[in-house]
Amino acid sequence: MSQPSIAFWYDFASNYSWLAARRIAALAAARGVAVAWEPFLLGPIFASQGWDTSPFNIYPAKGAHAWRDIERQAAALGLPLVRPAPFPQNSLLAARVGLAVGPAGRPAFSEALFREEFERGRSISDTAVLAEVLAGLGHDAGAVLAAAASELVKTALRQQGERAKRLGLFGAPTFVTADGEVFWGNDRLEAALAWAMDGPLPGLAR
Amino acid sequence: MSQPSIAFWYDFASNYSWLAARRIAALAAARGVAVAWEPFLLGPIFASQGWDTSPFNIYPAKGAHAWRDIERQAAALGLPLVRPAPFPQNSLLAARVGLAVGPAGRPAFSEALFREEFERGRSISDTAVLAEVLAGLGHDAGAVLAAAASELVKTALRQQGERAKRLGLFGAPTFVTADGEVFWGNDRLEAALAWAMDGPLPGLAR
Repeated sequence: MSQPSIAFWYDFASNYSWLAARRIAALAAARGVAVAWEPFLLGPIFASQGWDTSPFNIYPAKGAHAWRDIERQAAALGLPLVRPAPFPQNSLLAARVGLAVGPAGRPAFSEALFREEFERGRSISDTAVLAEVLAGLGHDAGAVLAAAASELVKTALRQQGERAKRLGLFGAPTFVTADGEVFWGNDRLEAALAWAMDGPLPGLAR
Repeated sequence: MSQPSIAFWYDFASNYSWLAARRIAALAAARGVAVAWEPFLLGPIFASQGWDTSPFNIYPAKGAHAWRDIERQAAALGLPLVRPAPFPQNSLLAARVGLAVGPAGRPAFSEALFREEFERGRSISDTAVLAEVLAGLGHDAGAVLAAAASELVKTALRQQGERAKRLGLFGAPTFVTADGEVFWGNDRLEAALAWAMDGPLPGLAR
């Protein structure tokens, strides 16, 4: 039998994606589940729902609760939370760099960039921040940034958006199992990993 | 020290409130936490956000995921799920009856009515269904239904709405601790109970 796997769909601007990015590697490794890191942009999906920013901004009560909820979870995980301003950050360049860095380097790059954003409050649309993170991980920052600006990577990111749309994604983080089961939300990570390992519970049709 | 407690705010039409209603009694009892059952209406709160129905209807991708998510959780809990039609049900009469039945009878009545709605697909706006549930629990159904139509109970339900608004509630279920910490969502029940017992983690200011 091949190794169980899940796809981890995330937007670099998403606060709950930060929590998932900080949890997924250890949880998946403990269960022997492989993770494909899939950066995408929520913006076009939100726009198709009539939203021009995060729902946490559009619905202030919901947004206030979300930040408090994240604060509580960060405290439980021992993570510092520094809210980036503005929120959400523009994540277009980050997503392109996340693709340009390639699948092998993507997990470490993504987690490091999430940490700069949500643990230090730094701007992920700032090329200098991206270059610093890349260099810190041993990448040739100039080469990766150049690749991120290429038509190849721009097209790849558009294709990520089309894949996300076909999967019916409407938020992030979202976890998708190899058999196509979709789990939305950081709090569904454990359930997605369990499904990847064991499949559906008896009586639950695919 | 007094017994720890939480308030459980729910709308009878809410599908995730059903899951919470089916879980809360055992989880709270195991931890020695008292639960105040607080029925209210989401309708006016949704209306103030510009919604005229459930967000699960307004945002179809989100709604499809929610139902699948609930199906998965119901399977894990061993509960049958029968989606009521229409969804959401009109929960005005149910909320009034839930108040009229009084605090002592409210948990059992509420859980029983949720079961009729989400495990058998029955209409909670149907007086006959409400009467049957009441009678099954040993209540004088006629007397409770008459009380539910009284000005006293109508006023009490409006006051529930005002309390919910002051608490900043924007969805259901929501759990509120005695010190005012708000936890939205069935999946935050365990965290709310832990907070009620132990208070905030070190470093997490109220």
